[in-house]
Amino acid sequence: MLVVMNHDATAEHVARVVEVIEEMGYQARPMPGAQRTSVGLVGNDGRVDASPLESLAGVAEVIHVTKPYKQAAREWRQENTLVTIAPGVVFGGREIPIIAGPCSVESEHQIVLAAQQVRAAGASALRGGAFKPRSSPYSFQGLGMKGLELLALARRETGLPIVTEALDEEGAHRVAEVADLIQVGARNMQNYALLKTIGRLGKPVLLKRGMAATIVDLLMSAEYLLAEGNTQVILCERGIRSFDPSTRNLFDLTAIPLVQKLSHLPIIADPSHGTGLRDKVLPMGRAAIAAGADGLIVEVHPNPDRAMSDGGQTLFPEQFERLVVAARTIAAAIDRSITPGSGTRTAANG
Amino acid sequence: MLVVMNHDATAEHVARVVEVIEEMGYQARPMPGAQRTSVGLVGNDGRVDASPLESLAGVAEVIHVTKPYKQAAREWRQENTLVTIAPGVVFGGREIPIIAGPCSVESEHQIVLAAQQVRAAGASALRGGAFKPRSSPYSFQGLGMKGLELLALARRETGLPIVTEALDEEGAHRVAEVADLIQVGARNMQNYALLKTIGRLGKPVLLKRGMAATIVDLLMSAEYLLAEGNTQVILCERGIRSFDPSTRNLFDLTAIPLVQKLSHLPIIADPSHGTGLRDKVLPMGRAAIAAGADGLIVEVHPNPDRAMSDGGQTLFPEQFERLVVAARTIAAAIDRSITPGSGTRTAANG
Amino acid sequence: MLVVMNHDATAEHVARVVEVIEEMGYQARPMPGAQRTSVGLVGNDGRVDASPLESLAGVAEVIHVTKPYKQAAREWRQENTLVTIAPGVVFGGREIPIIAGPCSVESEHQIVLAAQQVRAAGASALRGGAFKPRSSPYSFQGLGMKGLELLALARRETGLPIVTEALDEEGAHRVAEVADLIQVGARNMQNYALLKTIGRLGKPVLLKRGMAATIVDLLMSAEYLLAEGNTQVILCERGIRSFDPSTRNLFDLTAIPLVQKLSHLPIIADPSHGTGLRDKVLPMGRAAIAAGADGLIVEVHPNPDRAMSDGGQTLFPEQFERLVVAARTIAAAIDRSITPGSGTRTAANG
Amino acid sequence: MLVVMNHDATAEHVARVVEVIEEMGYQARPMPGAQRTSVGLVGNDGRVDASPLESLAGVAEVIHVTKPYKQAAREWRQENTLVTIAPGVVFGGREIPIIAGPCSVESEHQIVLAAQQVRAAGASALRGGAFKPRSSPYSFQGLGMKGLELLALARRETGLPIVTEALDEEGAHRVAEVADLIQVGARNMQNYALLKTIGRLGKPVLLKRGMAATIVDLLMSAEYLLAEGNTQVILCERGIRSFDPSTRNLFDLTAIPLVQKLSHLPIIADPSHGTGLRDKVLPMGRAAIAAGADGLIVEVHPNPDRAMSDGGQTLFPEQFERLVVAARTIAAAIDRSITPGSGTRTAANG
Repeated sequence: MLVVMNHDATAEHVARVVEVIEEMGYQARPMPGAQRTSVGLVGNDGRVDASPLESLAGVAEVIHVTKPYKQAAREWRQENTLVTIAPGVVFGGREIPIIAGPCSVESEHQIVLAAQQVRAAGASALRGGAFKPRSSPYSFQGLGMKGLELLALARRETGLPIVTEALDEEGAHRVAEVADLIQVGARNMQNYALLKTIGRLGKPVLLKRGMAATIVDLLMSAEYLLAEGNTQVILCERGIRSFDPSTRNLFDLTAIPLVQKLSHLPIIADPSHGTGLRDKVLPMGRAAIAAGADGLIVEVHPNPDRAMSDGGQTLFPEQFERLVVAARTIAAAIDRSITPGSGTRTAANG
Repeated sequence: MLVVMNHDATAEHVARVVEVIEEMGYQARPMPGAQRTSVGLVGNDGRVDASPLESLAGVAEVIHVTKPYKQAAREWRQENTLVTIAPGVVFGGREIPIIAGPCSVESEHQIVLAAQQVRAAGASALRGGAFKPRSSPYSFQGLGMKGLELLALARRETGLPIVTEALDEEGAHRVAEVADLIQVGARNMQNYALLKTIGRLGKPVLLKRGMAATIVDLLMSAEYLLAEGNTQVILCERGIRSFDPSTRNLFDLTAIPLVQKLSHLPIIADPSHGTGLRDKVLPMGRAAIAAGADGLIVEVHPNPDRAMSDGGQTLFPEQFERLVVAARTIAAAIDRSITPGSGTRTAANG
Repeated sequence: MLVVMNHDATAEHVARVVEVIEEMGYQARPMPGAQRTSVGLVGNDGRVDASPLESLAGVAEVIHVTKPYKQAAREWRQENTLVTIAPGVVFGGREIPIIAGPCSVESEHQIVLAAQQVRAAGASALRGGAFKPRSSPYSFQGLGMKGLELLALARRETGLPIVTEALDEEGAHRVAEVADLIQVGARNMQNYALLKTIGRLGKPVLLKRGMAATIVDLLMSAEYLLAEGNTQVILCERGIRSFDPSTRNLFDLTAIPLVQKLSHLPIIADPSHGTGLRDKVLPMGRAAIAAGADGLIVEVHPNPDRAMSDGGQTLFPEQFERLVVAARTIAAAIDRSITPGSGTRTAANG
Repeated sequence: MLVVMNHDATAEHVARVVEVIEEMGYQARPMPGAQRTSVGLVGNDGRVDASPLESLAGVAEVIHVTKPYKQAAREWRQENTLVTIAPGVVFGGREIPIIAGPCSVESEHQIVLAAQQVRAAGASALRGGAFKPRSSPYSFQGLGMKGLELLALARRETGLPIVTEALDEEGAHRVAEVADLIQVGARNMQNYALLKTIGRLGKPVLLKRGMAATIVDLLMSAEYLLAEGNTQVILCERGIRSFDPSTRNLFDLTAIPLVQKLSHLPIIADPSHGTGLRDKVLPMGRAAIAAGADGLIVEVHPNPDRAMSDGGQTLFPEQFERLVVAARTIAAAIDRSITPGSGTRTAANG
């Protein structure tokens, strides 16, 4: 940490900064410059709270050199964390799993059909919302417990592991009984109470980036899960806010190599929310693989025109098939491969 | 709602749009243009889900004309909603209450002293966090239940009503027992589970704008509270994300007249979080009053240099006094007045 | 400047950084930390190009401590710069001038009438575009040279000094013959060729903040003018890009106290472009004065419904009158005053 | 165009809107709704200025249905525009050219060596700045005319066509004498005077997206070039402003399929400026190809550590070689191919 003094800070100001740093239990190292003095704080273990320093007289700025996250950092753990959500479905390695399915679970027929279709096309996990965070209280809020039961049924029918979102503490416990991967949605990325609860459930977690979250914010939220002892965390880029209304969100694919450098946790991409436009999901899904994503999560519905939510960004099953084929070719081009779905495996075995 | 067709949409495409609109129970009104046809949806009660239309063949865009919020709209209720949190402390009228106090409750001495100081300076309510949403799991998370007890004590000592944040369902019930105004923080603005819980508690709510929330998003979150039957909702502008690191957030004061036109709910401003810089709180607090804010919420601490959180944006008591004096003059200039604090009233009575 | 090394940087990496700093003519001061080493660059005169350091092996980050602008900095000149555009019309002092007039000069009748109306209401300068930067090549682009002649005529008729925009080198010379204050528009804030040309014309300059410009970017563009020897520079906040389509731009009033701390140059506010909405100009104009703005620039037209550009954000003359009255009261509340317009002075003299 | 009336607009308000639309020469089509009336403007040729309507009494909002750009629209021209900058170097077709070279021309040795290296690695055009837009007036501003001469020399030595930026009218004429593709930089995207000048030069133009430009803004700037009769326009995504300081800019790859749907003009990607980080150029260059980019432009320098500008985002020649190899494989995966560079061709011929 570096405390930069004002141009006109006095020797007393500097002495007081040194004193406060030493009271905090660290060493202070003043560094006079041509225009201003800075004071280095040495011995920082990454947990220093800068507040007492920022407000001292003569201080212009406090610059953080040490990263605020610890266990999420690549420096904490050099090798990639591998997150296994079902046998053969591993995030963070050479293989790239694809999660697919409808925005919401709507009926037994819909979710089982969707599961069969995405499995046949090459998905290795099924997504589907039972509890839905909707911006309007009057919109369809999901089937709730009934939705979880239908997801469990779809897993029995297809063998696909289940990815679904939890919105609150009570729901998190219910979701944990069914899901193989518990999703924390973008709107709840900084719902720390929920992160603490989910961090203790002992199940893999899919943490989606908030709409106004920096990469550091995302890693800090992951840190909440890790601090509860859960190391099975997958991050997800799904688009952030921007000034251009052309797309629902701004899909920030550079987040993928950024996270992979800063952290050992896997990061996947959601081109459905990332673009909000059905015809952009194919090119941007391909781009995500080329950028090095450790997985994809894609909205697919047997009949998007009849979907109860997010229809406009949801793929038809045949479009999803084309995406998987393209993803396989792109993955091969960078020496990786798409995780063979159980549909594929069954076919191969059959 | 207006469905804009592609340039090259066929008559069949248009017919299908008309058919789907009619299946949804509305009337369709095709409107051929020089370059493209549009189809109006008439009879929209504001709850139409556009998804089925967005994805039909030949559709370029669906434009929403009706607002997505209902009960929060000025059109639902013409006159301002007045929110009373204690006798004489009313938001939404001619008088402008000021809420002040430390970021976190730290000790009995600190919170009681802070309460006395802000009361003496002219505040009419006390803020103080017992449950703190911190971006790092290793930062001070608040005193919790002990903090609530100390807030109750500070109220007994000073008569000031209490404003404090709830982070989860369990905490919301505890907070509701003590607080006169329950705060939903920026990070939880779209935590719909929490909004539903708090909407049912029957206490006034202070809903802070999320860092990536548009004005419409803010009103939609208020709609969640109103939909639960709670009409005692105060909105709060506290800064949003921007590309300029000069300030912690970008304080969007235009939100004040915008909300006042679109909604009947009062809106206050938080220049402490809005700027993140102590020396910007005075000018921007003045500006908020001049823009027409229905209240201010300001961080003040007996000794900001020793504050356990947010020290760098927290006022010294004497700075807060100057802010109140300036706010009084500015309010008078626009034919409003700062709510006389109980400190002032006691003095006047004494 | 501080060069932060990677966690696993070797002693050789650090030695190479030291060597390069010394080759650049500065002193290097290595500062080993608990987690990583940093190397301070001492003797920085503010013109160091960090590129050679950023790309050295083992370097994690280069942190700039010295500001990149020099002559624009408050540290370069402690007292406020006063910019006088006509006798009695001074920016940067206790008095606050108001500039008003139509977006575009449209005809002799329109501009002379507008000038008379804004003078009568209390403006002390006239704005009006002769060369207009329009986002569409098919929109009205201004009257050009004819517009400049009409502005000169309006000045003769009313005595108001003229503020008008220059778009290119050739136009800048023409504008300089007529204007008392040459405007560089937001879209040209980083048109360095234009800044250099205008910096040499020896006339006061009004530099508007670009839509994606940070405060530092704005001061760097001012530095281009100052570096050409022109110290008569007025900055202007006029709204930046944000994710919320509720307003045309996001009016960043905190820019006012920020600039006033970092720089000695005056800064004014443009609530017309800042909000893009006529009914927001009054409250946000008031707020700008309360925040400490050194001036206002406002769009006013004799008949905004017939304006050839920007009609929707342009005030009717009677609305402008109300704004000036409000501005006077707010200015008085913070111990400043609105510059008495020549209309007012004439009246007082008459 | 759709004029949406306020909830409480009167029949007189609606009648006035109809009248104004008819005065403007269009047909008005009122459309009463459940909550509010809208009035459609029919016969819009895309050049309607909405200002007179926005400010009428009772009008809530004016919604633009017709696109503001005309000649840049895919609807104006269905097939892709092919832009040829040299024999065999064509943008907009199945082949994807790669432009590479240093940020600035620094010396004969540097630019000739760079040209030879990028040609050998597979580039089919050489970039290099002679006139540099730098945010500081004290930074290296490029070699100017001498730089243009060196670029011409490098072309003679290697056969590579030249891409270089023009900053002003005078410079544009000089650049046009040497360059095969004239670049308009991000900071000048809305410098309409420069666009008009360059539009008349009869040379292909590379128009980079501004930092705060929406896709529509970008196409509107292209429209300025097209309106001058120049159809040889290549667009370029190079990153926009965001709130996350992790990268220099936010690389918006979704712009690629967006532009390709809306326009017939080719669009290329600049992963060097798009990320600002050398180690992100390879993955994001791959991602751009996978997203469908019609070209890449990449900064490469014989010795980036010694580069006079942008060193930190510039590739070493051997890194560029790896990028070209990866781009070839990714392009093949989507049925396209990288334009064989003249280096490759010579090799093949040799």
